[in-house]
Amino acid sequence: MGAKSLCGKYFSSPNFYEQETQKIFRKEWICVGRASDISNVGDYLLHEIDGESFIVVRNDRMQVNCFYNVCRHRGTRIQEEPCGRFKARIACPYHAWTYDLQGNLKTAPNMDGVEGFDLNDYTLGAVRCVVWQGFVLINLDRESPAFEESYGPIYSRFDEWELADLVSAHRKTYDIGANWKIIFQNYSECYHCSLVHPQLSPITSVTTASNDFTEGPFLGGPMILSDAYDTVSTDGALCGDHFPRLSDEARNKVFFYTLFPSLFVSPHPDYVLTHRIERRSRNSTRIICDWLFPQEVVDRNGFDATNAIDFWDVTNRQDWHVCELTQQGVQSESYKPGPYSNLESTLAAFDRHYLKVIGEIES
Amino acid sequence: MGAKSLCGKYFSSPNFYEQETQKIFRKEWICVGRASDISNVGDYLLHEIDGESFIVVRNDRMQVNCFYNVCRHRGTRIQEEPCGRFKARIACPYHAWTYDLQGNLKTAPNMDGVEGFDLNDYTLGAVRCVVWQGFVLINLDRESPAFEESYGPIYSRFDEWELADLVSAHRKTYDIGANWKIIFQNYSECYHCSLVHPQLSPITSVTTASNDFTEGPFLGGPMILSDAYDTVSTDGALCGDHFPRLSDEARNKVFFYTLFPSLFVSPHPDYVLTHRIERRSRNSTRIICDWLFPQEVVDRNGFDATNAIDFWDVTNRQDWHVCELTQQGVQSESYKPGPYSNLESTLAAFDRHYLKVIGEIES
Amino acid sequence: MGAKSLCGKYFSSPNFYEQETQKIFRKEWICVGRASDISNVGDYLLHEIDGESFIVVRNDRMQVNCFYNVCRHRGTRIQEEPCGRFKARIACPYHAWTYDLQGNLKTAPNMDGVEGFDLNDYTLGAVRCVVWQGFVLINLDRESPAFEESYGPIYSRFDEWELADLVSAHRKTYDIGANWKIIFQNYSECYHCSLVHPQLSPITSVTTASNDFTEGPFLGGPMILSDAYDTVSTDGALCGDHFPRLSDEARNKVFFYTLFPSLFVSPHPDYVLTHRIERRSRNSTRIICDWLFPQEVVDRNGFDATNAIDFWDVTNRQDWHVCELTQQGVQSESYKPGPYSNLESTLAAFDRHYLKVIGEIES
Repeated sequence: MGAKSLCGKYFSSPNFYEQETQKIFRKEWICVGRASDISNVGDYLLHEIDGESFIVVRNDRMQVNCFYNVCRHRGTRIQEEPCGRFKARIACPYHAWTYDLQGNLKTAPNMDGVEGFDLNDYTLGAVRCVVWQGFVLINLDRESPAFEESYGPIYSRFDEWELADLVSAHRKTYDIGANWKIIFQNYSECYHCSLVHPQLSPITSVTTASNDFTEGPFLGGPMILSDAYDTVSTDGALCGDHFPRLSDEARNKVFFYTLFPSLFVSPHPDYVLTHRIERRSRNSTRIICDWLFPQEVVDRNGFDATNAIDFWDVTNRQDWHVCELTQQGVQSESYKPGPYSNLESTLAAFDRHYLKVIGEIES
Repeated sequence: MGAKSLCGKYFSSPNFYEQETQKIFRKEWICVGRASDISNVGDYLLHEIDGESFIVVRNDRMQVNCFYNVCRHRGTRIQEEPCGRFKARIACPYHAWTYDLQGNLKTAPNMDGVEGFDLNDYTLGAVRCVVWQGFVLINLDRESPAFEESYGPIYSRFDEWELADLVSAHRKTYDIGANWKIIFQNYSECYHCSLVHPQLSPITSVTTASNDFTEGPFLGGPMILSDAYDTVSTDGALCGDHFPRLSDEARNKVFFYTLFPSLFVSPHPDYVLTHRIERRSRNSTRIICDWLFPQEVVDRNGFDATNAIDFWDVTNRQDWHVCELTQQGVQSESYKPGPYSNLESTLAAFDRHYLKVIGEIES
Repeated sequence: MGAKSLCGKYFSSPNFYEQETQKIFRKEWICVGRASDISNVGDYLLHEIDGESFIVVRNDRMQVNCFYNVCRHRGTRIQEEPCGRFKARIACPYHAWTYDLQGNLKTAPNMDGVEGFDLNDYTLGAVRCVVWQGFVLINLDRESPAFEESYGPIYSRFDEWELADLVSAHRKTYDIGANWKIIFQNYSECYHCSLVHPQLSPITSVTTASNDFTEGPFLGGPMILSDAYDTVSTDGALCGDHFPRLSDEARNKVFFYTLFPSLFVSPHPDYVLTHRIERRSRNSTRIICDWLFPQEVVDRNGFDATNAIDFWDVTNRQDWHVCELTQQGVQSESYKPGPYSNLESTLAAFDRHYLKVIGEIES
């Protein structure tokens, strides 16, 4: 028998939601944004998830740090503005306990003579944090494998697009009434393209899809652009330039990769589309979508990415709609796993990886 | 000692709410609408309850079917518009799996050669469904008694009003902040009429009320109209005609019946008022109220049901208000069952039936 | 080692919330308003909390009674208007059961001949209720100590301000996204004043603060007004008169007392500011703030309390903001108790009392 879709419990059970929290979202490297959003010393962004808030900040050695947004005195949330710049110090607004950009407590008024008090005991709670290909990723588990090991298979995959140096020409945030896995599964097949995305079919035919990652946390591969299209955009014309280091064989392709559990990367000949996925609840997910171009292209007089933005914004919304319908259906008591078609092998691979990670099948 | 009202736990405990789900709402025949709402081949309505969605559709043999609104491929909710007409086929909007109006899967693209795949294994999930007196009723339990057996006592009660052939001249939906049983209890006595419904007292005196169903799932009986009133309406005049098959003794009466657990039927000399009750949560209920007349009366030039509609709409709202106050009170830690008056014997009968069905007292 | 702030579980655990309910809010005397709000026979106010509603009413002997707002017939909430006046009787709007202002059932229609029915068995549910210093306090536990015993230490503390006779010149209600204990803790220290309340620092210096209650349910003491200020107001001038019985040593002081678990009393030379605290959920609290003056001052031509009201309204809002930030932080998995400073001894005392009352440490 062929593979079938996941059981309903993985989309609706509070128990499995908590299993995911412990075995995936607290153990894996999770993308929280782009390093170019905090390019200067003191620049920060807040990452808020599940009621928890993190400060992601560029320190004065130009490194990116991540701290819990919690003062070590009485637990006050230190910063509430979602992004901005600290002037050399991070100060709590309640009693003026003050930290440097490495999270060290530097001053604490009226603590002189408090028995046993030592500034060094009260650094901000630090979280593991790396920058890779311009993405900032954090890991809440001190014991889980190093980033280089976890992301080994895909570590250099995006070099030809010089992804590390790209900046966001546009960002859109979507809140979707569907489980995050349904969104991964939607991205992983083009079986639905002819019905859901009529505008996409002339550009990339489902029959040209192939995969260079077919098992494990990273999945996906290229589709070939039709002759009349230089990239995916409403008129088929490039919005930027062909990436200079792009290999010849990649010039007429668009690639679609899922990076479990928080990122989609879609390199095009002239830009890279990224989706950052935030699990919000069993049946809601936030997607932050970036259209990334080289800085010099964005700075160019007359640069206009509208055709790339509009195309994918329309396509995204079509996808979110069927994802929401699917969420509604898989919550039904009548839902039973159904058979995957010939065009859904990547979903079966995603499901296998997911089931391994949460311990439902042996790895 | 006389009978007393139900304990507070039946109105507020999550445990008893779940007991009701299993022992009542998943075992009994539940009214989901009127067959005349889907009179043509392909006409459908969605019945949505507790996050579950059902397609109620008239098939090409003019039968009414009910299916779970869930595609057998990946579980997508197939239809989201609350009513409409299918053109011979029911197609899933995600990957175009397509079913006929009997729920049989007819086409599934790209499934050729998938090992073990057979269209016949993937019919839409069917739910037991009957049409009785123009009502569509469904039953989620394959094992519970046949409709004819369950509804035996009242099966032919409404023949003289030709209820099967009536159509809705007007429909109103009410969302009420009260448990469904409080609404049944409110409908089951006119003890409150003098205070709550001053407009009703001159038309039907509580002293004329009697019951022809006094025990079990069906309860209620007639009240006698005052001499100055031909029906219940703001001016006492008929909005339609006396029902042609109406017995002489019913010509000056209005009848009030509760059909456990989802229907009130109130035959008048010229129309039948119906309340369809949907339990939404422990403390919220939706009521869909129809004013039913013969088709030929509704089609008549100058037909105007305003006087019947307005009268009962005002009366309904007065009832919902005291029901909401009662819900608030029975949730109090101080609430204790209170004594029923001489005018509340039907409530005691309702309570006994309810307690039997959920297994709290022996049947 | 010095004392540290409370563990996070006391601010976010459902278990401890329920412990508080049983061991604090159902056992202690809880303030529900001012007696002057219901000064005439029949005047009532509703106290609503946790879905429960109480009628606080002045009876025809001029006593204040408190009843559950629940009819003894079928449990209907009797009164829904938050305040008003009963005309000698309290009547249920559903079936006209009618009680006198002492809660005795006087009439119940159609109950004649109901077996075993006796009006005397169905009085409104009464709750212990006292008036002290003009505050109305209730206690849901029949067994807990008498009010005079519980409030013994502070019983006569406010005599020099003649608190019993003061009336509210202004009332403001605040809904705050923080646990009630965070609000008690905020009120209990002026460590935060220099940063959070720049307008307060010139009026009362944190260095002048002292405590005359340092352990137990009642905590707090005076701060000395700067020479340029006669009271706390935007211009430092009195809004009323010096209280006539005020001792000389209190003329240049403002006092801040917390009365566990529902009241702050802040006597000033010419008015008394009070905060009534209602716990609403783990992370929300309602505060009702009154500016109390003698009746003859309020009635005086040209009386204007704007400078006192505005000053404390601004100060309140500054406090609620840091309280909300603290609530957000103490819910973090990373929050750990932090060390109290030299200026936070009252918080440590509050914590000790709280932990004793809920049985976490020995009393």
